[in-house]
Amino acid sequence: MKLYDLELSGNCYKVRLFCALNDIPLSIYAVDYMAGEHKTDAFWEINPLGQIPVLNDDGFIVRDSQAILIYLAQKYQLLSWWPQNAKSQGDVMQWLSYAANEIARGPNDARLHDLFGINLEVDSARIKALQCAEILDDHLSDKDWLVGDSPTIADIACFPYIALMHQGGVSGEQFEHVNRWMNAIKGLDRFISMPGIE
Amino acid sequence: MKLYDLELSGNCYKVRLFCALNDIPLSIYAVDYMAGEHKTDAFWEINPLGQIPVLNDDGFIVRDSQAILIYLAQKYQLLSWWPQNAKSQGDVMQWLSYAANEIARGPNDARLHDLFGINLEVDSARIKALQCAEILDDHLSDKDWLVGDSPTIADIACFPYIALMHQGGVSGEQFEHVNRWMNAIKGLDRFISMPGIE
Repeated sequence: MKLYDLELSGNCYKVRLFCALNDIPLSIYAVDYMAGEHKTDAFWEINPLGQIPVLNDDGFIVRDSQAILIYLAQKYQLLSWWPQNAKSQGDVMQWLSYAANEIARGPNDARLHDLFGINLEVDSARIKALQCAEILDDHLSDKDWLVGDSPTIADIACFPYIALMHQGGVSGEQFEHVNRWMNAIKGLDRFISMPGIE
Repeated sequence: MKLYDLELSGNCYKVRLFCALNDIPLSIYAVDYMAGEHKTDAFWEINPLGQIPVLNDDGFIVRDSQAILIYLAQKYQLLSWWPQNAKSQGDVMQWLSYAANEIARGPNDARLHDLFGINLEVDSARIKALQCAEILDDHLSDKDWLVGDSPTIADIACFPYIALMHQGGVSGEQFEHVNRWMNAIKGLDRFISMPGIE
């Protein structure tokens, strides 16, 4: 199983982390992002969106970090990570959309601006980042995990860009429940980190 | 089953359309969006994101149109709409993320600007809208449906804001495969429309 990867991408890290936690072997192919490899015809054949991560599992290609998490959890029947009952799937999915939309427009965009020099409205992204963290903090005020009593792919999808928020110029120090939750993720067996996450 | 709804919202329409196609009874509660009901404390109790749609199924509350689609398909075991094998779930999920991210930032944002007067960078949203439609058009060039041989929740999630693109000042006339696909959706038994979709 080959992951088209960038070490500094929080989206790629979601996949690396999930595979590490579940002992899923992964062959890492480092996309030369700085040289623009993701904008070449060869890469667009793999993912017309020109984005990483992309997973190639023996010829089956799937893009988008949230989709890769569902694919892997379903393939390996990791049912605590991707429960099969309707209510849990609805609950998990609303946080996957949160990762794909609100977190992407908030902490992820602010970091893209500061770390990669992407031209975007960084003030607005920083406000959204704080709102994102606040909503998570409220949600986690009486919970250990985003959905149910154990970690799911919802936690994996939301964790990286919240943990990397400081690289977009936004401090998350005041969000005590979010910090407790992040420490619980960091305390999971076989947890791996990425640059920017201590 | 109660849907917190806005008639002009393409996200709410995804839920109404899916329920209509599958004969799922739905009680519609029209949120008074213009009066700001979605910004009241009472609404924030239901959805701290202050967004519609929200579904209340006998006390179980789920927000986000993509999450509601998965919840309903899984609850009623509509397995052609939400297949259970890993590859299909990965394929469907990448288009649900596409709806939550790329389509939201493209045709949805452009329409929010033009129709609801939301302050955002409309030129950039229109460019993204065209890119969105182009990627869909390429994907659909040799396919009837986004995933597999029959409609899935991926089609329902991506259809509304592509069909409403003209309300954000972007014409989709030139995308012949997208137009064929939209006509196929409109041709489904029990299809219902919304204002702006002919």
